[in-house]
Amino acid sequence: MDARVSIVSLSVTDMQRSRQFYEQGLGWRASAIGDGEVAFYQAGAMIVGLYDRAKLAAEENLPPVNDPQNVHGGITLAQNQASKADVDDVVAGAVRAGGTLRREPADTFWGGYAGSFADPDGHVWEIAWNPFFTLDESGIRLPD
Amino acid sequence: MDARVSIVSLSVTDMQRSRQFYEQGLGWRASAIGDGEVAFYQAGAMIVGLYDRAKLAAEENLPPVNDPQNVHGGITLAQNQASKADVDDVVAGAVRAGGTLRREPADTFWGGYAGSFADPDGHVWEIAWNPFFTLDESGIRLPD
Repeated sequence: MDARVSIVSLSVTDMQRSRQFYEQGLGWRASAIGDGEVAFYQAGAMIVGLYDRAKLAAEENLPPVNDPQNVHGGITLAQNQASKADVDDVVAGAVRAGGTLRREPADTFWGGYAGSFADPDGHVWEIAWNPFFTLDESGIRLPD
Repeated sequence: MDARVSIVSLSVTDMQRSRQFYEQGLGWRASAIGDGEVAFYQAGAMIVGLYDRAKLAAEENLPPVNDPQNVHGGITLAQNQASKADVDDVVAGAVRAGGTLRREPADTFWGGYAGSFADPDGHVWEIAWNPFFTLDESGIRLPD
């Protein structure tokens, strides 16, 4: 697994408030592909996403952020791959290296393929193939 | 403040265990500039850092990660700037936009200049000037 981050996902409790902060407040421009539960921002060669906090925790089968057992604090990292087979390989390799499997790679409801693992401190890495994003050696890009 | 992430810092409880996972396990190569309390990895146009968890929390004056009052879960984001004045401007702008000031911009012990704010959900952004890293339009680079 190379040292590379495709998406930093910030979980948020009030999407409207957060979008107002990042868009009207800081001047970021959201991608058109977002919906009420997710917003994406092109950030140089990577992407920052805002995700509904409860949905992000559910997706990774994590306890709520304010649960003291939860090391995950509401930020997950994603590394995108060029193929489904690469997703399988990277997740398997991370588990062999001592990572904890969180989600077996599988087709996703949004038309991609993804799995995830946690590092020794519980930080979650989603490994994903997303046919709607452009991935090359320079980084990852949202659709125009 | 532009949509850009320079450094993703993962807080870790056992630096040796985490370095073993990311380096021997995943094959990442640490920068020579790290020490026992921090490790840096060039990740494309940005940097991933491992930080001692207690020290990262103390630096941002945050409660411990497992404190249920703590929304911050052990990952902070940094956006580097070209000058100290830019750090002041970005932090002030984020606070005007509704962010919560966490650390007034000031000279740091490591020879840089940094401040921080939290977004509406408590996600911490450090805004920093670091004369040891190379910052240009293509991203940020660790020293060779």
